[in-house]
Amino acid sequence: MEVVFCKVFVLKDLRQITVIGLGLLGGSVSLAVERCFSGVKAVGYSHRAATRRKARRLGVASEVVDDMKSAVRGADIVILATPIFTFEQVFAAITDALHAGCIVTDVGSTKVLPHRWASRTFRRAVRYVGSHPIAGSEQRGVEYARDDLFDGALCIVTHTKQSDGGAVALLKGFWSQVGCRVELMSPAGHDRVFGDVSHVPHVTAAALVNASKSEELKFCGKGFMDSSRIASGPANIWTDVLLANADNVCRGIDRVVAELGKLKGALDAGDAKVVEKLLERARRKRNSLISYKMNKRELIP
Amino acid sequence: MEVVFCKVFVLKDLRQITVIGLGLLGGSVSLAVERCFSGVKAVGYSHRAATRRKARRLGVASEVVDDMKSAVRGADIVILATPIFTFEQVFAAITDALHAGCIVTDVGSTKVLPHRWASRTFRRAVRYVGSHPIAGSEQRGVEYARDDLFDGALCIVTHTKQSDGGAVALLKGFWSQVGCRVELMSPAGHDRVFGDVSHVPHVTAAALVNASKSEELKFCGKGFMDSSRIASGPANIWTDVLLANADNVCRGIDRVVAELGKLKGALDAGDAKVVEKLLERARRKRNSLISYKMNKRELIP
Repeated sequence: MEVVFCKVFVLKDLRQITVIGLGLLGGSVSLAVERCFSGVKAVGYSHRAATRRKARRLGVASEVVDDMKSAVRGADIVILATPIFTFEQVFAAITDALHAGCIVTDVGSTKVLPHRWASRTFRRAVRYVGSHPIAGSEQRGVEYARDDLFDGALCIVTHTKQSDGGAVALLKGFWSQVGCRVELMSPAGHDRVFGDVSHVPHVTAAALVNASKSEELKFCGKGFMDSSRIASGPANIWTDVLLANADNVCRGIDRVVAELGKLKGALDAGDAKVVEKLLERARRKRNSLISYKMNKRELIP
Repeated sequence: MEVVFCKVFVLKDLRQITVIGLGLLGGSVSLAVERCFSGVKAVGYSHRAATRRKARRLGVASEVVDDMKSAVRGADIVILATPIFTFEQVFAAITDALHAGCIVTDVGSTKVLPHRWASRTFRRAVRYVGSHPIAGSEQRGVEYARDDLFDGALCIVTHTKQSDGGAVALLKGFWSQVGCRVELMSPAGHDRVFGDVSHVPHVTAAALVNASKSEELKFCGKGFMDSSRIASGPANIWTDVLLANADNVCRGIDRVVAELGKLKGALDAGDAKVVEKLLERARRKRNSLISYKMNKRELIP
C-alpha cells in the first residue's frame, strides 16, 4: 500500500508552488503567488531559454529552472500553463518526480481531456483537480504577465467523483487568495458552458474577420474592432482549445448559424417587426448580463 | 428660372447650422459646431418635449426649437440625425422652408436610400450630400452627447454625378473642422463597405447573444462582452439600418456562414492544420488592421 505523506490541506502549510509554462497566464500565476503568499516559493519552468531569461529579468518567480522534473520536485501544487495538448506528455514526464499528496492542476480552457489524461497517468497519491481562471487577453508572452491578472476574475475549479475533496478545497482557497471568485463545476459542464461563452465567440470573431475584405476593413469603426478583438489571440493555443472541445463548439456554431439564418430570413422578407424583435432580444439579454456582471463587480460602471 | 442665392461655399461664411434630431449623434454634432465654429448659430430640433428640455439644460445648441420648419429657416447646413426611415418624411416637411443654396446632409449609416429620397424631394437649388461620421457608441440619448465625439473619427461624405461640387467641398471642410478625417465615396460603394464592416458585425453580435443560454452567459469573460458589445445598440435604429441595406447585409451573412462552415468542417474532421490556418489568417488580418489604425491615429497604442 502506498504511503501518502506531505499532504497539504490548508493554505498556510504551502511551501512551494511550481508553474510549468511561463506565458501570459503562467507568468501571472507565478507573480500572483509571489504577491499573495508570503513564505511560499514560486518555481517556474519554461522549455525555452529566451522565456527563462525574460522571466528571470522580470522576476516572475523565486526560481526559474530549465528542467521540468527538478521544477516539480518538492512542490505542494503544480500548475500547468502550457497548451492543452501538451498536458498528457507533461503529466507523464513529471509523475515520478511528484511527492505523494501533491496537487496538480492546470489553467487550460477545456477540462474534460485534462481530467481524462490525469486519471490515466497519475498514481492515486497525486491529486489532480482542474482549474480555469477566466482571465487573460489576446496578448501572449511572459512580458504581459501581471500580478493582478486574477483580481476579481472568475475561476472555475472542476472535479469529479474521483477527486480528492481536500485538494478541491485547497485549490478553491488558492484561487480565492490570488483574487478570484471561485465556482465549482464538472469537467463536462465546464466544457459545455465555455464552449458557448468563450470558444464559439472566438470562432465567430475569426469567421467575421475572414469574411471581410482587407481593403474594406480600413473603414471599420470601434464596433468591428471590439467584435473581432479575440480573433487576435494566438492561433496555435486556440486551435488546441477548439479541438479539445470540438463537439460543443460545433453544436454552438450550428446555433449561431441558425440565428444568423433567422435574421437573414427577416431581412430578405423586409420584415421590420421580426428584425427588431431579434435585435431587441439580444439587446435585453446583453443588458441583463451587464447588470449581473456589475453586481458581481466583474465590470466597472 | 430659379434664382439661387445665399449659397455658402466657404466655411467662414457659415451663419447657421440646424440639427434635426437630438440623440447621441445629433447632440454631439451640435455641441461640436458650438465648439469648433465661432459665430455660427447651432439650432437644434427634437419632436420630443423631454429631449428638448434635456438639450436646453445641457446647452447642446444655441437654440432648441419645437418646430421643424422654423428650425431649418435660415440654415446654411441642415443635418438630419433621426432614424433613416424618417428621412423621406423630414425632407418633404422641410423642403419649402429651405433657402436656395442650402446644403442638406444626414448622419445615417446607409447612403443609397437617403440620396434617392433627396433627389426625389428637393428642388435643384437645395444641395444634398450624404455624410456618415463613424462615431457613436451603443448608448443613446442626448445625455451621452459629447463635443469631442468626432475627434479623430472617420467621416464618409457620399456624392453622385448630380451632387453640387461646392457643397461636397464645404461638407468636407465642415467635418474636418469638427475633427474628422474625411473620405469620399459613392452611395452604393459606401453601403457595400459599411454593410461588411459595420452592419454584418452587428447582426453577428446579435446572433451570438441570441444563440447563448442566459444561465451560461453569467460565466462569460471579457471576450464575450467585447464581441457582443454592439448588440446593446438600440434595436429600432439598427432595424432601420439593416433594412435600408438588406441586400448587402444578406450577402455578408452568407459569407460569415460560409466561414463558420469552414471552421466547423475542420473541427469535425479534427484537422488541426486547417483550423490553425483559418485562425492564423484572421489573426494576421486583424493585426494588419490594428497597424493601419495606429498609423492613422484612430487607435491609441
